[in-house]
Amino acid sequence: MMLYTFSLAPSPQRVEIFMKEKGINIPSETVDMMKQEQLSDNYKEINPRGTLPALVLDDGTVISEVVAICRYLEISNPDTPLLLGEDAKQQALIGEWDHRLESEFLLPIADALRNQGDGFKGRALPGVLDIEQIPQLVTRSIKRIKAFLEILDKQLSDNKFVAGDTFSMADITAYVGISFAVWVQISVPEELKNINRWFDEISKRNSLK
Amino acid sequence: MMLYTFSLAPSPQRVEIFMKEKGINIPSETVDMMKQEQLSDNYKEINPRGTLPALVLDDGTVISEVVAICRYLEISNPDTPLLLGEDAKQQALIGEWDHRLESEFLLPIADALRNQGDGFKGRALPGVLDIEQIPQLVTRSIKRIKAFLEILDKQLSDNKFVAGDTFSMADITAYVGISFAVWVQISVPEELKNINRWFDEISKRNSLK
Repeated sequence: MMLYTFSLAPSPQRVEIFMKEKGINIPSETVDMMKQEQLSDNYKEINPRGTLPALVLDDGTVISEVVAICRYLEISNPDTPLLLGEDAKQQALIGEWDHRLESEFLLPIADALRNQGDGFKGRALPGVLDIEQIPQLVTRSIKRIKAFLEILDKQLSDNKFVAGDTFSMADITAYVGISFAVWVQISVPEELKNINRWFDEISKRNSLK
Repeated sequence: MMLYTFSLAPSPQRVEIFMKEKGINIPSETVDMMKQEQLSDNYKEINPRGTLPALVLDDGTVISEVVAICRYLEISNPDTPLLLGEDAKQQALIGEWDHRLESEFLLPIADALRNQGDGFKGRALPGVLDIEQIPQLVTRSIKRIKAFLEILDKQLSDNKFVAGDTFSMADITAYVGISFAVWVQISVPEELKNINRWFDEISKRNSLK
């Protein structure tokens, strides 16, 4: 197996933290997104999508979605902590929150970041398509990010971790999202005490140091 | 248990087809999205997100993401056909394609639909937030939808079904997406022969008639 990754970007980060939490080691190669190496012909021969991360199995199968990679690792390493949940309800709730975090938090952060400034001109979406920026998306996305932080705070007022009593993939995604939000000048407001309590607590984990 | 649904909308459709394929019956209630009933105070007491579908478990837990609902049903009905896959690799590949279909196909179709016309004014995204339309998103989205159809056709040139040899959740999502694309005047071009072959074949299934 080989993991193609780039530790500074949020999607590869989610997989790397997931692996650290499980104590899984896989040979890995860094693809430097700062130099747009993910769009090089060399890398696109491995992953035609031009995205990171990508896990290549021994039989050549390529998996390039974060949760799909994590599910592969979860099922093939049953003796490690189960971060996607155990029974039906727990798996559903972790999937629910992880998906919401992706679509209501990570995605608007990426939209806010990529639709302004010169760095992402013509590259407003990840991958091989040339996509022009739409500056109006920035305002919409900032509104969504702030609204979601309120929702997350409410969820953490009733729960120790994002999806319930135990640390899970949803906590990893929330943590990565909060770190990523700083790139668009958003930090968790002081009055969202539940997020701040949770964030301080999980920041002590070895996987997140 | 109670499933809140609306058979004309793509997200509830995915859950309904999933249940038909498995032969699962759950009491259900229709929430009429044409009348915006999903945003009524009554429904928001059940699902504060104001989205459909929602599955309410007997202990009151609400699950409102399509794949999370399907995973709950998959795990709690182990004797029905496993549409999210069996071993690690199959589960990963189905998750990979289902997720790509959501983010690279269903999402741009929804964006193209909701960011034009009077019907979705101030409602450019599902849920409780008021979001103004951004007409430029329509062009971007149409470009993405067409590009993804090419990718899907290539995938179906090597595979009987979207994620491999067996019918899965990914086929359900692709089928719902292709039906949904008609709302933005996109149909599968004749030259994408692999999609057309697959679509003709799966359209005969009882769950899709």
